[in-house]
Amino acid sequence: MPERNGMLKLGMVGGGKDAFIGAVHRSAARLDGEFQLVAGAFSSTPEKAIESGRELGVTETRNYPSWEDMLERERRLPADERLDAVSVVTPNHMHYPVSRAFVDAGFNVICDKPLVHTSQQADDLASIVRARGTVFAVTYNYTGYPMVRQARCMVQQGLLGDIRKVIVEYNQDWLANRAEAEGLKQAEWRTDPTRSGIAGAVGDIGSHAENLVSTITGLTLSHICADITTFVNGRLLDDDANVLLRFTSGAKGVLVASQISAGEENDLRIRIYGTRAGLTWIQENPNYLYYKPIGEPEQIYKRGHSYLCPEAKAAQRIPPGHPEAFLEAFANIYRAVAVEIRARQEGREPSPEESDFPSIEAGVRGVRFIESVIASAKSSEKWSAVR
Amino acid sequence: MPERNGMLKLGMVGGGKDAFIGAVHRSAARLDGEFQLVAGAFSSTPEKAIESGRELGVTETRNYPSWEDMLERERRLPADERLDAVSVVTPNHMHYPVSRAFVDAGFNVICDKPLVHTSQQADDLASIVRARGTVFAVTYNYTGYPMVRQARCMVQQGLLGDIRKVIVEYNQDWLANRAEAEGLKQAEWRTDPTRSGIAGAVGDIGSHAENLVSTITGLTLSHICADITTFVNGRLLDDDANVLLRFTSGAKGVLVASQISAGEENDLRIRIYGTRAGLTWIQENPNYLYYKPIGEPEQIYKRGHSYLCPEAKAAQRIPPGHPEAFLEAFANIYRAVAVEIRARQEGREPSPEESDFPSIEAGVRGVRFIESVIASAKSSEKWSAVR
Amino acid sequence: MPERNGMLKLGMVGGGKDAFIGAVHRSAARLDGEFQLVAGAFSSTPEKAIESGRELGVTETRNYPSWEDMLERERRLPADERLDAVSVVTPNHMHYPVSRAFVDAGFNVICDKPLVHTSQQADDLASIVRARGTVFAVTYNYTGYPMVRQARCMVQQGLLGDIRKVIVEYNQDWLANRAEAEGLKQAEWRTDPTRSGIAGAVGDIGSHAENLVSTITGLTLSHICADITTFVNGRLLDDDANVLLRFTSGAKGVLVASQISAGEENDLRIRIYGTRAGLTWIQENPNYLYYKPIGEPEQIYKRGHSYLCPEAKAAQRIPPGHPEAFLEAFANIYRAVAVEIRARQEGREPSPEESDFPSIEAGVRGVRFIESVIASAKSSEKWSAVR
Amino acid sequence: MPERNGMLKLGMVGGGKDAFIGAVHRSAARLDGEFQLVAGAFSSTPEKAIESGRELGVTETRNYPSWEDMLERERRLPADERLDAVSVVTPNHMHYPVSRAFVDAGFNVICDKPLVHTSQQADDLASIVRARGTVFAVTYNYTGYPMVRQARCMVQQGLLGDIRKVIVEYNQDWLANRAEAEGLKQAEWRTDPTRSGIAGAVGDIGSHAENLVSTITGLTLSHICADITTFVNGRLLDDDANVLLRFTSGAKGVLVASQISAGEENDLRIRIYGTRAGLTWIQENPNYLYYKPIGEPEQIYKRGHSYLCPEAKAAQRIPPGHPEAFLEAFANIYRAVAVEIRARQEGREPSPEESDFPSIEAGVRGVRFIESVIASAKSSEKWSAVR
Repeated sequence: MPERNGMLKLGMVGGGKDAFIGAVHRSAARLDGEFQLVAGAFSSTPEKAIESGRELGVTETRNYPSWEDMLERERRLPADERLDAVSVVTPNHMHYPVSRAFVDAGFNVICDKPLVHTSQQADDLASIVRARGTVFAVTYNYTGYPMVRQARCMVQQGLLGDIRKVIVEYNQDWLANRAEAEGLKQAEWRTDPTRSGIAGAVGDIGSHAENLVSTITGLTLSHICADITTFVNGRLLDDDANVLLRFTSGAKGVLVASQISAGEENDLRIRIYGTRAGLTWIQENPNYLYYKPIGEPEQIYKRGHSYLCPEAKAAQRIPPGHPEAFLEAFANIYRAVAVEIRARQEGREPSPEESDFPSIEAGVRGVRFIESVIASAKSSEKWSAVR
Repeated sequence: MPERNGMLKLGMVGGGKDAFIGAVHRSAARLDGEFQLVAGAFSSTPEKAIESGRELGVTETRNYPSWEDMLERERRLPADERLDAVSVVTPNHMHYPVSRAFVDAGFNVICDKPLVHTSQQADDLASIVRARGTVFAVTYNYTGYPMVRQARCMVQQGLLGDIRKVIVEYNQDWLANRAEAEGLKQAEWRTDPTRSGIAGAVGDIGSHAENLVSTITGLTLSHICADITTFVNGRLLDDDANVLLRFTSGAKGVLVASQISAGEENDLRIRIYGTRAGLTWIQENPNYLYYKPIGEPEQIYKRGHSYLCPEAKAAQRIPPGHPEAFLEAFANIYRAVAVEIRARQEGREPSPEESDFPSIEAGVRGVRFIESVIASAKSSEKWSAVR
Repeated sequence: MPERNGMLKLGMVGGGKDAFIGAVHRSAARLDGEFQLVAGAFSSTPEKAIESGRELGVTETRNYPSWEDMLERERRLPADERLDAVSVVTPNHMHYPVSRAFVDAGFNVICDKPLVHTSQQADDLASIVRARGTVFAVTYNYTGYPMVRQARCMVQQGLLGDIRKVIVEYNQDWLANRAEAEGLKQAEWRTDPTRSGIAGAVGDIGSHAENLVSTITGLTLSHICADITTFVNGRLLDDDANVLLRFTSGAKGVLVASQISAGEENDLRIRIYGTRAGLTWIQENPNYLYYKPIGEPEQIYKRGHSYLCPEAKAAQRIPPGHPEAFLEAFANIYRAVAVEIRARQEGREPSPEESDFPSIEAGVRGVRFIESVIASAKSSEKWSAVR
Repeated sequence: MPERNGMLKLGMVGGGKDAFIGAVHRSAARLDGEFQLVAGAFSSTPEKAIESGRELGVTETRNYPSWEDMLERERRLPADERLDAVSVVTPNHMHYPVSRAFVDAGFNVICDKPLVHTSQQADDLASIVRARGTVFAVTYNYTGYPMVRQARCMVQQGLLGDIRKVIVEYNQDWLANRAEAEGLKQAEWRTDPTRSGIAGAVGDIGSHAENLVSTITGLTLSHICADITTFVNGRLLDDDANVLLRFTSGAKGVLVASQISAGEENDLRIRIYGTRAGLTWIQENPNYLYYKPIGEPEQIYKRGHSYLCPEAKAAQRIPPGHPEAFLEAFANIYRAVAVEIRARQEGREPSPEESDFPSIEAGVRGVRFIESVIASAKSSEKWSAVR
């Protein structure tokens, strides 16, 4: 399959058949016509990798049985055939070796979250990214929503005053029963420490919550106090976490992440309370942002309007009332990475609104957060410092 | 003012001019035509007490300058003139001496929350109530809502399975600024330790949240871990609290109480997650209860329908879609107390649905909860036991 | 039962056992302590009337077997014993004779809606009210809500610009089945032309919708085009109506009233669209008013705040977030009537905010509206004039 | 640009720069990787057409200055290079000549709504489609939503009983001011009778509302009574319509379509009331369907769950709580057309769930509806028959 003129060439590691997130990455990459999937090693099982690549229409010569083969061959291609970016959408344990190797070979990388298993790995990867100067994005996709960017802008404009308190929650129920014992692939690796890492719900969704807080508020965690639980018998990792937060600014907070909260689907939500106003955003109805100035009527900011901040406008595609949702937010990461890659290729400086994606630093911070929560949960000390 | 045949005779201590909660108690007492206000000592300032009583139309001979005068005279009245109940709606510090004295004299008492300042006082008061056998209600008014009673019933019926997690919140913003320095009476005494007690937001609203959890779930707190804050400069008590909860059953939870959460009005809400289903209730839109069985459509139970439990039905007055609200819930406490008093006067056993009100034991538990939160907040130990 | 000093003496015609609306009137009258029920003829069946009066605690001498007896005796009482007002809460067909007789005897009257059966009766009653100068209120209770008054104020302030369009709906389902054949009293008389009048749903709830439009917008209907239906077999009156509206100003609209809309409880709602902004209010969640200026964030006005108009503030009792509902809105009619009566008794002019209740003129307009809808429904002409 | 193996080859007429709906069609076509845009005549202005094609990356040889050129050359291409489908996304007046010509040449066509200007054109086009046996889809995109398909299924399963009443609305405000005089392209042609046709709001959005009713309920309109208005001075077509509906089954209804409803964005919503239950769906929050059986708790059906009907499941991509929205619904039309085209190419019969798209018959019905509304609006007869 030859490439279309002007489209960026994308390779993918992981994301074969039965993988939820691989298909999401592909839809997101495709939505704006910026990327064309031209190569891949879609599974750790060679046969499955090849089969998946065929189903996806990838040319035989670039459909690899393993990521090592892919790296080996793709790095030697001439500049005009070379991949513009590689998406790493494997289970967590492969993020580090795969991302590290591709970055080291000079490839731009889009890696799923959480970035890696340990902060040592994270620091190492970050230093290699810095050394090689490649583009590196972590798909904290929820901060790709236009109204999250609007929230960040309103905080920066001082509309909330000084932030006193943050309540962030990520409530799900898909692991309320022992789905990993019933053949659900998504559940299997996410509850397996060798693949998922030291954390279950904390890593899978708690890190999204942390990223949401950090992205919108810009606050830095100082100390946390965590209570994590494994409610489902036989499960090897946490499926529920309640965490008290203290920020360096003196702000306080609560973070809740749960995969056993019966009846909840994908209930990521954040409330931020400042000295002047409060702000609420709810992922399941993402086109609205609720702004509550003290003593004035509550206001509902809605996606698509001219009154929004430039970075919110840059993240939308269609008019008000024509709802955008999860895929568009995810695609915003890909679109921003495309802008960044093209700008670098052309020696330009992209506008900050257009090249807005979660960086390796966000990924490193996420890994540290996960480690801190697990450490706090094991500690009898009330407060554990967040590095 | 002579009494109407058949109406119970109510006296009131506190609740004079400028008092918010006194007027609420009177409306609640009046709503169902069960009580007639015939006596009172409406303020700690004698002139203000008398003036308030006149405005309320209380007969001069029963309009007292002090609660001690009221007690002294009312206790000597013949049985057919005697007060059927006394409402204690003073600032917190007077709950103990006033309630104790009236109970000791054999009066039935309806006391505002939190019951008293210390658990010693609470235990003492409870033992006197038991000794004298009087009716004693604590106005944890929010558990008077029909849909809270429906929630309790559904938990008891096992519709949620085993409860794993509870998130209860009470978010307000009326103390986001230093209202106590601007002449707001309600703020003044609530932020004054000599009148409010050891806790601010924790006592004023956190105890409502505790009562809501306890009433609906029947769970018993084992340990808590609290972080409380005074965000407003110059304030003497906490205005924000975040608390991790552990129950004796193994269930976990989070309790949030805040009076600085900008843009929130009176946002008491609870979410309960069991092995089978979740349940959500929100005080500001109280006629609905959201039931979320795993893998099935969410259901909205609505006040007034024949499919509700008997105790929910017993707590309502008008048909579906004709919303009931705060006053009716509050009045349910008074109506239930009236049923209990009449039953005792007539030697009957009232039905549990009709005589459903928060008992002295709920009040005692609330005081212990407040003490535990303050103790935990001061402790460097992660977990503090709840007695 | 002697009267309490300072309370207004209320008599009631109708509203005995099994009557929904009589109990609502009594609760509304009682809520603010302004009225004391001292006399009544509570049923057209003498035995039931007397029995109901006894249950309500009315003194034997003022507990009448018929409204004629009540009128006969009460009119002769000395001034200081005389009723300050009479509530007429019978089925519709008795509104005219009872109200007319009591007004003619100089009594102030609070009459349920629709006012009477025909516009001739309405005009006659109105002229008698004017001639006798008595206070006359029609319990279009939904316009007693604080946020309806806020809506009216915002229209008057020009915040909507010129009104172009109104959509008003009143959707219920309690007559989706033939409840009148199953012994439901409320259904029986409402579906009986001899008691209910020429209209079913149109009269029972359509007239509330008309009053809501007229109260908030001040617009005058010019022409209507109605399609009414009786969906339930055997029913004698309409149970569903869809009506196109044209106002004299050039504004257009739609009015829907239905008692067969499955799953709807008491869904009265209005949307108003002007050249500058839209406005939405929904009775089932009545503490909020949604204001939508073109090109700006939607705003949610909430009951209890200092930013509201004086007439909205005058209609509330408790702080924001402590929801008020149906009974309080109904009680606002009674409280305003009390203010008006006392002002007249004392020769004062009451403030417009405090004496704000639906007048006999609103009642007359409602009857004309009902007649117009029925006439249009029978006509093959597209547009029928509204007188 | 060579084509990717396995992707269907798509051509497009219209949809150049500044066109909203062309970009939506392209995103929708791209989302699932089924179509590749390989040819186009993107504007009626040749220079603009070519420039748009270049920006879209279309190969020079298939980037046409006019649709006639495109047709002329594309029809002569060998079978393996031929377009699998042509999207017609011009202003309305070109739908007929362009669609007719391409169908006549044997191309499959995806045409925007409303289908054509007159029912004669519609009938003519339909007969050609039947004669040529091509695939023809009309992008009534809102019926592509999974929960609309769930609604249709639930009606068919009898969960609502017999339908009595339908209320469908489509409220917008983007034409509340004279946007067509301010250079807004979308407004210009939509308010120009030579391009838009005889109707403004009625054609642009009223026909979506009609399609929604027809798709979900399967009911057939018998008679209508319409009141249409042009509120904005100088505008040449209607910007507001209120229509009473009568169905052949005896069901009644109301249809509202407005582009001057201040504060509304894209508020398409439908309520359906049957003898057993009601059903509500709201486009702006499209992942939920509200099912209200009489006398039981309301139920919220949510996208992504196993309890949904097969046709709803076939229309979704990602798990519950990961919201899908406008683009995915639109893409469902394209995906279904792709399934249909491939099935025909391979001589298979596709499953009805997978090849579910609005047909030419739906388009014909939509044109008839528009004509009927305009005819009724001009008539002094109350009821106009719908052919």
